[in-house]
Amino acid sequence: MTYINENFQKLQAGYLFPEIGRRVGNFAKENPDAAIIRLGIGDVTEPLAPAITEAMKLAVDEMSVTASFKGYGPEQGYDFLIDAIRENDYAARGIEIARDEIFVSDGSKCDSGNIQEIFSADTVICVTDPVYPVYVDSNVMAGRSGEADDEGRYAGMVYLPANEENDFLPSPPSQKVDLVFLCSPNNPTGTVATKEYLQQWVDWARENDVVIIFDAAYEAFISDPSLPRSIYEVEGAKECAIEMRSFSKRAGFTGVRCAFTVIPKELEGRTKSGESVSFNALWNRRHCTKFNGASYVVQRAAAAVYTPDGLKQTSEQVAFYMENARLLREGLSKAGFTLFGGVHAPYIWMRTLDGASSWDFFDRMLNEANVVGTPGSGFGPSGEGYFRLSAFNSRENVNEAIARIQRGFGG
Amino acid sequence: MTYINENFQKLQAGYLFPEIGRRVGNFAKENPDAAIIRLGIGDVTEPLAPAITEAMKLAVDEMSVTASFKGYGPEQGYDFLIDAIRENDYAARGIEIARDEIFVSDGSKCDSGNIQEIFSADTVICVTDPVYPVYVDSNVMAGRSGEADDEGRYAGMVYLPANEENDFLPSPPSQKVDLVFLCSPNNPTGTVATKEYLQQWVDWARENDVVIIFDAAYEAFISDPSLPRSIYEVEGAKECAIEMRSFSKRAGFTGVRCAFTVIPKELEGRTKSGESVSFNALWNRRHCTKFNGASYVVQRAAAAVYTPDGLKQTSEQVAFYMENARLLREGLSKAGFTLFGGVHAPYIWMRTLDGASSWDFFDRMLNEANVVGTPGSGFGPSGEGYFRLSAFNSRENVNEAIARIQRGFGG
Repeated sequence: MTYINENFQKLQAGYLFPEIGRRVGNFAKENPDAAIIRLGIGDVTEPLAPAITEAMKLAVDEMSVTASFKGYGPEQGYDFLIDAIRENDYAARGIEIARDEIFVSDGSKCDSGNIQEIFSADTVICVTDPVYPVYVDSNVMAGRSGEADDEGRYAGMVYLPANEENDFLPSPPSQKVDLVFLCSPNNPTGTVATKEYLQQWVDWARENDVVIIFDAAYEAFISDPSLPRSIYEVEGAKECAIEMRSFSKRAGFTGVRCAFTVIPKELEGRTKSGESVSFNALWNRRHCTKFNGASYVVQRAAAAVYTPDGLKQTSEQVAFYMENARLLREGLSKAGFTLFGGVHAPYIWMRTLDGASSWDFFDRMLNEANVVGTPGSGFGPSGEGYFRLSAFNSRENVNEAIARIQRGFGG
Repeated sequence: MTYINENFQKLQAGYLFPEIGRRVGNFAKENPDAAIIRLGIGDVTEPLAPAITEAMKLAVDEMSVTASFKGYGPEQGYDFLIDAIRENDYAARGIEIARDEIFVSDGSKCDSGNIQEIFSADTVICVTDPVYPVYVDSNVMAGRSGEADDEGRYAGMVYLPANEENDFLPSPPSQKVDLVFLCSPNNPTGTVATKEYLQQWVDWARENDVVIIFDAAYEAFISDPSLPRSIYEVEGAKECAIEMRSFSKRAGFTGVRCAFTVIPKELEGRTKSGESVSFNALWNRRHCTKFNGASYVVQRAAAAVYTPDGLKQTSEQVAFYMENARLLREGLSKAGFTLFGGVHAPYIWMRTLDGASSWDFFDRMLNEANVVGTPGSGFGPSGEGYFRLSAFNSRENVNEAIARIQRGFGG
């Protein structure tokens, strides 16, 4: 038998969402009449906007005729999409990003899982805690950790607790780290970073030779125009930060699959012998060697997000979800819950009742309100005692969930 | 500055196809009136079949309505596609593959580049030479090699020359290796493996604890029904082989992006301490952690390949390309070339003239016939002195290319 990558064996059993699926499945089997409302996994529920589906059909038509058929495209993405991204997401906010600094992909999960490949094997990883599990797991699989402790912290990784004391916005660590994953608006806490907060991180990263992976998958949910949507709104960020964005939540693409990563050419790493190397060039090599570009039809769909109709329709969807979030905040506050997030993010981060553990509260919420959320501890040890609700659902289901939670927990 | 993955620095400068693009670009600039015919990169030219585009439009319609909208799907792929694969590609040839042994992805390039992640860092890689570069490059990037020598062979990897002496079908190596990449019908040589040939490899792999990655991306081009389309037609293969397939060439999906990997549950690896571990479980973990499923619309497109209309239309496309291959073989034979492949594969592998190097012949072909092919040496040192022509083009262009080559080289 051939030897396996034993780093996989360090991974804590089961990814969070499969375990949720198992518990919900068991509950549904025992309670076949229960109308379960799912506010757990952050998956969109609104259909694709008309501007997007029209563009997809036109693209399919192009693919059905020899003259306009598209085979292999550029691994980095088509210019029609890259230019729409540059103009709308960056130039419109005063940020200049070159064409060859943008890499279109089939999803931010892939990008955030793959990005570690361009860093050395002994890179010290730093994450905020609670955290989107992919940042951690992909580095564990690549051998950048020891075993996990009882609370799920992997040896050799640096965890920064995000809690009520620091308003869920931890400061840079004092010990030496090499690569930090930041996410704003944050999954799972729903917190958003201010410009001053990001400036603190960027200044620290530049002083300490650290690279920041900035996950901005939820930037479209920021309702205050003065808050930064890109880390590149912060001075010096191009020298220390990689930014990732996704069409998943902003335009309902969780089943369509399109995202992109920005790596400025100013961002350099080094070899052990001291030579400077462009991370942009390394990622380009990785992208060209192991990826063949996102689907043409999907890239046309993504480009349609930036048309006048697409911008209008997708911002209406975002507003719809954010009204859900507002209703959840209001309704759960009335039921006596302590809540965070949900203002610039589609996630409500709530304290469990009576100091219950996250999983106990998950079971109670499922049993008493037939509502599925996500146990905070599934995102890391500092998530223990918290619970995440997502605003992605129909208005009817959100109102019903609020009513049930108020009945089940309100008194 | 953060340290980079220095294994990337070992990669030979430039991937093959960008270098071809550079030379062709220069030629086109200097000869703006030349009507260049591209038989280089193996990219399809026929449009998507009607059965496929109809299915894609129906899927887009589903995505435009709340009730039928699809968000995140199973990371492994939808059952409607997996079951179509099981029935048509496997059960129809007497092979039983379980649902959870099939993993749908966005492309075989990704799969063949990512599969190495589930193997230990000290895995010894064996490839036939010439070879599809991704097998080698992805392992170099993961640190499973030393530096390349002058001919491009990476230290620590085992290369098996595929040449005229062994009919381009090399036998298993005598030294100890752990992981072998085999490709049949072969890219680039166009050779096809017989059942007896594969049996020899499977028997050897089982005796020597070796895993075979069997790349069957071109199986649809096999015209003799007695030849194996799957390695699982060979006894014992489920215990030692992973199979990869793609819709790219078989159904014109190079710009659509869909493929799949089969990992039988019988296939086990081991830890250094001797524990057995299922490679299927490891790949499932990798797939769930770093991938979010292929696009729903794309999976519907792939499933349409297996409908009666889809099977008929895509097999007509394959037949069209294979008639191109036949014409190329006939025409180039008349011009005096020594040819291989092109009978069960869309690639013609030809000896250069007068012992010219592959790149010199590339330039001569470009200058004298304005035809772009692929230098054999780009696929590995044993490809030196050979040249690959692809059968993917219009009939008109193929006939014109033949006529020009006959004029340029025929006498």
